[in-house]
Amino acid sequence: MATLFSRIVTGEIPCYKISESDKYLAFLDVFPLAKGHVLVIPKKETDYIFDIAEEEFAGLHLFSQKVARAIKKAIPCKRVGVAVIGLEVPHAHIHLIPLNSVSDINFSLPKLTLSKEELEETAKKIREQLT
Amino acid sequence: MATLFSRIVTGEIPCYKISESDKYLAFLDVFPLAKGHVLVIPKKETDYIFDIAEEEFAGLHLFSQKVARAIKKAIPCKRVGVAVIGLEVPHAHIHLIPLNSVSDINFSLPKLTLSKEELEETAKKIREQLT
Repeated sequence: MATLFSRIVTGEIPCYKISESDKYLAFLDVFPLAKGHVLVIPKKETDYIFDIAEEEFAGLHLFSQKVARAIKKAIPCKRVGVAVIGLEVPHAHIHLIPLNSVSDINFSLPKLTLSKEELEETAKKIREQLT
Repeated sequence: MATLFSRIVTGEIPCYKISESDKYLAFLDVFPLAKGHVLVIPKKETDYIFDIAEEEFAGLHLFSQKVARAIKKAIPCKRVGVAVIGLEVPHAHIHLIPLNSVSDINFSLPKLTLSKEELEETAKKIREQLT
């Protein structure tokens, strides 16, 4: 069965899209740890990130770098942090999270509840900073 | 002043080395969240990871991928997680952390205290799995 993320790739499930290439997709995490929390995925379904072939793995990270730079410009934060856990959705994904303290990356923390309008506005702000 | 990590690169401060190339270095975090917690750094000092030039950024991640695969073979865990925070030492570094649950990446948790012998043995086990 297609993963939740593959269903986002095909458009079956909508997302707040940040950036897309032929191989990669970035969109807002709708259960964010912070405003501007973005997920970056390879369109091709692979469960474990370190199983991805080298060229695609490097490409995924270069794509993430562009997105992270845009998040940093759009969202007030000290820097953009990175987390890859991968124990919930079996489709590799990189969390890019605006940080202000070392304790901000903690998936046990309660997630923010943002309205559709806030999510749309956040996605737009980040997209405007992409170069 | 040279960062703590630059002083590890020059050998001024010792480390439990996992792998080294001309541009990158991997060594055990001596304040680990889990046994087998490794730091991967570029030898060239850059504070914020997303400021690293693209080619070096991709190379750093490919180097990390090799190390993560070795950790997974050496250390019993569900998978190897990734975190980049970067608010403490001003020298970009990737945390590679053996994970068993989504709450294992949490830098507010108490760090493990491992003996010199345990750290040496852990580093050796991981090095033996490098290909």
